[in-house]
Amino acid sequence: MGSAYDAMWERLNLDLNAHAALLEVLGKFYGDIYLSQQGRLKGMEYLDFVISEIHGLRIKELQEAKSQGRKVVGTFCVFVPEEIIWAANGIAVGLCAGAEVGRDKAEEILPRNLCSLIKSFVGFKLARLCPFFESCDLVVGETTCDGKKKTYEIFGDYVPMYVMEIPQMKQEADRELLRKEILRFKEKIESFTGNAITFEALKKAVKMLNDRRRVLQRLNKIRRNHPVPISGRDALLINQISFYDDPERFTQQISKLCDELEERVRQGNGAVPESAVRVMISGCPMAIPNWKLPYVIESSGAVVVFEESCVGSRNTRDLVDESAETMDDLIDALVDRYSRIDCACFTPNEERIANIISAAKEWNVRGVIHYHLNFCQPYEIESFRVEKALAREGIPFISIGTDYSMEDVEQLKTRVQAFIEMISA
Amino acid sequence: MGSAYDAMWERLNLDLNAHAALLEVLGKFYGDIYLSQQGRLKGMEYLDFVISEIHGLRIKELQEAKSQGRKVVGTFCVFVPEEIIWAANGIAVGLCAGAEVGRDKAEEILPRNLCSLIKSFVGFKLARLCPFFESCDLVVGETTCDGKKKTYEIFGDYVPMYVMEIPQMKQEADRELLRKEILRFKEKIESFTGNAITFEALKKAVKMLNDRRRVLQRLNKIRRNHPVPISGRDALLINQISFYDDPERFTQQISKLCDELEERVRQGNGAVPESAVRVMISGCPMAIPNWKLPYVIESSGAVVVFEESCVGSRNTRDLVDESAETMDDLIDALVDRYSRIDCACFTPNEERIANIISAAKEWNVRGVIHYHLNFCQPYEIESFRVEKALAREGIPFISIGTDYSMEDVEQLKTRVQAFIEMISA
Repeated sequence: MGSAYDAMWERLNLDLNAHAALLEVLGKFYGDIYLSQQGRLKGMEYLDFVISEIHGLRIKELQEAKSQGRKVVGTFCVFVPEEIIWAANGIAVGLCAGAEVGRDKAEEILPRNLCSLIKSFVGFKLARLCPFFESCDLVVGETTCDGKKKTYEIFGDYVPMYVMEIPQMKQEADRELLRKEILRFKEKIESFTGNAITFEALKKAVKMLNDRRRVLQRLNKIRRNHPVPISGRDALLINQISFYDDPERFTQQISKLCDELEERVRQGNGAVPESAVRVMISGCPMAIPNWKLPYVIESSGAVVVFEESCVGSRNTRDLVDESAETMDDLIDALVDRYSRIDCACFTPNEERIANIISAAKEWNVRGVIHYHLNFCQPYEIESFRVEKALAREGIPFISIGTDYSMEDVEQLKTRVQAFIEMISA
Repeated sequence: MGSAYDAMWERLNLDLNAHAALLEVLGKFYGDIYLSQQGRLKGMEYLDFVISEIHGLRIKELQEAKSQGRKVVGTFCVFVPEEIIWAANGIAVGLCAGAEVGRDKAEEILPRNLCSLIKSFVGFKLARLCPFFESCDLVVGETTCDGKKKTYEIFGDYVPMYVMEIPQMKQEADRELLRKEILRFKEKIESFTGNAITFEALKKAVKMLNDRRRVLQRLNKIRRNHPVPISGRDALLINQISFYDDPERFTQQISKLCDELEERVRQGNGAVPESAVRVMISGCPMAIPNWKLPYVIESSGAVVVFEESCVGSRNTRDLVDESAETMDDLIDALVDRYSRIDCACFTPNEERIANIISAAKEWNVRGVIHYHLNFCQPYEIESFRVEKALAREGIPFISIGTDYSMEDVEQLKTRVQAFIEMISA
């Protein structure tokens, strides 16, 4: 990772020394967790490259696009309808939120008892370590949890914020609220980018993002095979990178990788020994480089074959209907699609429990590892109902609460290993 | 407090021994905090009586009303439009949520990292210590915070739950959502009680609850005087009891108490020495018997003259417009009134900050003691913006996070005393 970008990072007002140190740590971490895997897929070379250039070449691309008048819009959540951003010739990117960075600075303006993800994005910004934040013309938040909702009010002093309201139930009135919020967002993006969104442009963006979802669905389906031809870590990484990379290029590359995976399946080659215990991770999103739990699981004789997560199936399961013939119908199709997200922010949220059970069966997992960030009340509280529902189905379950520090790795290993032994028996 | 009610409590399936022990502890606690005050108001005798009979006579009244076919509806939050309940000949009551009770039982079905209020209401129910829960035909929750929203899903296994959605912003679309939710609640209450709500009945209920708010506004205004004729503890108790007592009787009694207070003011008599430092408490609600912080403050040379709280001004400041001539207009008036609540569940919530500042000036306080329950993210995060806004106004501020245990009393005293010394200087 390179000093070739130092001038750009300096222009973006990053803390160069701290940033260099961060990249070094992350590079080593990536080496340990990813590059150490045996019999790596050829197609993962692209992902290795993207990761190595995520603060470099990708930022350079964003800067070049900006110099041509395009706007970069940062998002934190799968509820923000990216289609709107791309249709206005903007670029949607995920933001840095997966590492324990700038925590002390974040805790000067926020409580300590907040989830790592929130403290991380605030910390990345305050410590000047995220070139994505510095490239953003607008940051779009949403009201999916109390922590983010109230943090955005404070964060608005540091970045240009726009907040979208997400309803908390799924009644007809909520659908109307979401529809109005999508239209308000469309107006905001149009006036902000100066580009009116045409039906054709929105339809094209819908298709482009559906293509990205379709290739991730294809990847996920391949993972139903046993032995599974790709590790959970690699699959997670692909899902993570989908939030940062150029969508068309990403889709093309992952499509090639899927060809390679299908070939592996034909040959009966697994990424891990056939004896590896198939498990699902379910719960909170895992942003780059939050690979701790998957690594602990896959070092314990198991393999993750499904992520029931915003960085996983929650983001890719549902497509936008492409058959709309008017703008109104296309907006309705967006509302339909985004209304189907089974986030713990909804009450009730029975769909999520049903979706976990059906995925557990279809992906033939031996157990569900429920994962929440400490202080994430929606997912932590919901885990109690998930546990009960899985018990009724006879599916083993363990609940893991953690954060971004490395302090609990040994404890996690002990718990995860005991769980995996139990379900292998 | 009495064994005269043992048969009733047994019928309600309370844990009689544990309940007797609870009443004993609370009685002692009340004696220490309330009855020990010097020169008590005559009018407070009524409140002492209500407290002593809160699990006794009041429950007997509810049981008698039930035997006549009336329905008892329990609520947790000032967002539930009680007017609807009373208009359908129902009885609205607050629920037990202010003491550390049944915590172990609550933590079997909920995370540990949840605010005391939530763990308390769940604990009261699971430990069979709240005769209000056992008298309720329906419990009405709302989506004001992640903790409550997700807990109600679990709590629905133990009590008959209905959940009302509260929007998170104050746009036109949110107003429409709230209106629909009020109408959905009206339908629910009508079908549940079997009583259609007439315009006249709703108008009467609006007037009755406005009268209760008006008398509490009157009480609050009297507290602008210096020396203040009533302690903060007593004023808080009155606000707390407003959620449990019969509204008409309560209004009448508090009106008499206000007469007495005004007489005291005319005579220049204060409830505390003139030198007592005037402070405001701002933040989370304090349910009975959560008197810890007010007691610590008022034992430290200060007097609380304003509660910026759901059990305080947030519940009493706004009236429902009584001039409506049609049901539609009356519903609109309810929507108007409930939309004005400045709860931290909203984003942004600038009104609350403006309201704190103007009350700090009107009630002439020397400092604001911001209070949040640990793990209450909305109020804790918002406290950072409140602090900044008050600093700009030159109003001293301290943030206190606590729970219902008594473990931190000494630490609270130290912090509060230091703050009061600082602002007295």
